[in-house]
Amino acid sequence: MNALRSKKALFVAAAAIIAIPSAALAGDGHQDNTWAAKQAIKGGQARNVILLIGDGMGDSEITIARNYQVGANGRLSMDKLPLTGAYTTYAVQKADPSKPDYVTDSAASGSGWATGHKTYNGAISVLPNEKPVPTILELAKKAGYKTGDVTTAELQDATPAVLGSHVINRDCKGPDAMATCAVNDKVNGGAGSIAEQLVQTKPDLLLGGGKQYFDQTVKAGQYKGLTVAQQAQANGYQVVTDAAGLTAASANKPILGAFAKNNMDLEWVGPKPTRTGTEPAKCAVNTARTASQPHLVDMADKALTVLDKQTRNSRKGFFLQIEGASIDKQDHAANPCGQIGETVAFDAAIKRVLQYQKQNPDTLVVVTADHGHTSQIVEDVTLGYTATLITADDANMTISYATADIAGSQQHTGTEVRIAAGGPQAANVLGVTNQTDLFFTMKRALGLK
Amino acid sequence: MNALRSKKALFVAAAAIIAIPSAALAGDGHQDNTWAAKQAIKGGQARNVILLIGDGMGDSEITIARNYQVGANGRLSMDKLPLTGAYTTYAVQKADPSKPDYVTDSAASGSGWATGHKTYNGAISVLPNEKPVPTILELAKKAGYKTGDVTTAELQDATPAVLGSHVINRDCKGPDAMATCAVNDKVNGGAGSIAEQLVQTKPDLLLGGGKQYFDQTVKAGQYKGLTVAQQAQANGYQVVTDAAGLTAASANKPILGAFAKNNMDLEWVGPKPTRTGTEPAKCAVNTARTASQPHLVDMADKALTVLDKQTRNSRKGFFLQIEGASIDKQDHAANPCGQIGETVAFDAAIKRVLQYQKQNPDTLVVVTADHGHTSQIVEDVTLGYTATLITADDANMTISYATADIAGSQQHTGTEVRIAAGGPQAANVLGVTNQTDLFFTMKRALGLK
Repeated sequence: MNALRSKKALFVAAAAIIAIPSAALAGDGHQDNTWAAKQAIKGGQARNVILLIGDGMGDSEITIARNYQVGANGRLSMDKLPLTGAYTTYAVQKADPSKPDYVTDSAASGSGWATGHKTYNGAISVLPNEKPVPTILELAKKAGYKTGDVTTAELQDATPAVLGSHVINRDCKGPDAMATCAVNDKVNGGAGSIAEQLVQTKPDLLLGGGKQYFDQTVKAGQYKGLTVAQQAQANGYQVVTDAAGLTAASANKPILGAFAKNNMDLEWVGPKPTRTGTEPAKCAVNTARTASQPHLVDMADKALTVLDKQTRNSRKGFFLQIEGASIDKQDHAANPCGQIGETVAFDAAIKRVLQYQKQNPDTLVVVTADHGHTSQIVEDVTLGYTATLITADDANMTISYATADIAGSQQHTGTEVRIAAGGPQAANVLGVTNQTDLFFTMKRALGLK
Repeated sequence: MNALRSKKALFVAAAAIIAIPSAALAGDGHQDNTWAAKQAIKGGQARNVILLIGDGMGDSEITIARNYQVGANGRLSMDKLPLTGAYTTYAVQKADPSKPDYVTDSAASGSGWATGHKTYNGAISVLPNEKPVPTILELAKKAGYKTGDVTTAELQDATPAVLGSHVINRDCKGPDAMATCAVNDKVNGGAGSIAEQLVQTKPDLLLGGGKQYFDQTVKAGQYKGLTVAQQAQANGYQVVTDAAGLTAASANKPILGAFAKNNMDLEWVGPKPTRTGTEPAKCAVNTARTASQPHLVDMADKALTVLDKQTRNSRKGFFLQIEGASIDKQDHAANPCGQIGETVAFDAAIKRVLQYQKQNPDTLVVVTADHGHTSQIVEDVTLGYTATLITADDANMTISYATADIAGSQQHTGTEVRIAAGGPQAANVLGVTNQTDLFFTMKRALGLK
């Protein structure tokens, strides 16, 4: 593990510590936060809504990232949002939607916050009866707002998919992958795969991975014979595939950025947990990461720049979703440094968003997760797999993954998760709410019918 | 497991569902909570502070109890507090207090909220250098407030102990148990064991278990030869040992209620998790529970009645701590129904406290935990032990314990936990704070120097 304690890893840690100052906005307990809290509560309408979803980023995952990156008493950018609550994430059973499914997946939970309706695991913005329901992005676009959908996963993955597509099974990502969604298939008169529907919904920005599905060929209808990417181009999209292309893309036309065949590459690597634990180690930068892929903060920055420019002379602003997707995927993979690196990258995007909000206080910013996950900070080895990391405090932190074998996929958990917000309507995250309530909060903030 | 699906169990569940209405105060997302939130933020001083500690009651444990008792979309009384935040619980290393210990015990975390100082695991309101520091209860008493300390554990257990005693090791519960605390031993000129110090600090109410330590004989000083209980009586305490005695106790003198030799009996019993899971079952009332023991809500009710009566004609009110202690102990024991029953009993005490607050809005109420714990809601069997319960939703919920073998003790976890509050100064729990910050919030609320 000593190889992991490279200069690069130390540089990453040091740079981030400098970049993220300690708790300033969150009450530090020695000063009375009452007046600041009262000021933070704003009613009325927002010009913009920016939703940041840390996939699988429960309170345990946040604490792990905080301890590692800024120390136990440090504060991440996401910790600085003034208003906070707990948020229940359960799905419902397809066969009997009056009954909960206590452990949700990202599809059901995403459909919840995107549409205001609880649904079954695997559903992409369809009800338990498989009928589509409008999403916050679709409603915002219809009302004249600009829109963006950004992720480090495939753009066809559950979280980005729920905003601009409606299929009965989350696996139906492209025209060649419709086996479980006959009713949605274009050849049967349906609206098509997730990839096809996303470009038909036509957000002003679609940035992430999943290029392979945009490269599949449309099988029926007006665009038959074209790839989904070509269909997008025919409808006015600029299609870009690397960071340089993203930088160069014009703000005057919609942008489809597909930067990886599958999910985008991981930021960090580190020790693999074992049954008996590991020697303490630091995480390192993933040198195998494709250099031409933009980081999440780069995509967030481009999205904000473009959407701001496009709406500068408009009464209405934009709706933007930004997902830190591989927090979840690396928790499934029992990869602590993978998980933490993605959380830190997500937090960098949050920092950029909060800078934007500071300049544009008529912006509602919400940071939350779609469900809890497996990883736990423990004292000792467990019945599962553990690894020990050396944190920014120069102390050892042991992380356990114990809901599945290392060869399998660690399980989601059903715990309530943190939701944090600032800006108009942010007070609606206080207390205990449902992920479906977030839809209504965002809808109210944008004044949508 | 069919025996568990008894009429008694069904009655318990039904009664509780009727007793606890669904989300009224917490924003339900369809109505704008902005105005109510602004109204909920009150500065200034409180007449009373009531702190409720759910030991080991992380967000996962809260969600488990909610799902079981009132259903996933139901709301516990603790869910109805208007202002919420996340709260970090880490301890520090004794040898180098500049470094965190990421997984705290109840002693270090309790010392944190009771004194405002981070300390080492096992410390009872002493600093890492083993020196005592004043507690919120001691400061409140000194300033003329009435005080109470209530628990379902032994009164000498960490959470109640940190409010009125100072020893270097949490195990030093009575005069016969001072092996690891020579410096605190009366025979060496110290302040004595936890039991002795508690009655010397003399809160107006001390209610819980741990009778065995009050029955031990004082070994030096003024009360040498008396039991600790006799010492308490000599100093004006009424000593009661059962529910009838508690009911009959006068409000005109301090009350020491020691209702069990060790911890108080559990409320519920249920299935024992196994490596391969269990058949779905319901929890049942613990028929082995000693009928003469008061429930936590009975102790809370007596404490509120007495403290309210004692302060009716005073400008200053009271400080009261109420602990749901065996949430933690039954999570350690991998006993889901034990854990849930204690959480539900704790919530009944919270309901009583919120009724008091409604009549006395100049009361700060804080509900939080001292640390997270092992139990997780999962989809399937894990590498640990699981049991499946039939919830108030008539749906199956599977709970996993996987941080230790079933014969051992499940581990605490280092996750941030929820803190919820209402009343003057409650806004200081918003965002991300430390458990030590809670000391300063309560101190400010009571106007203590």
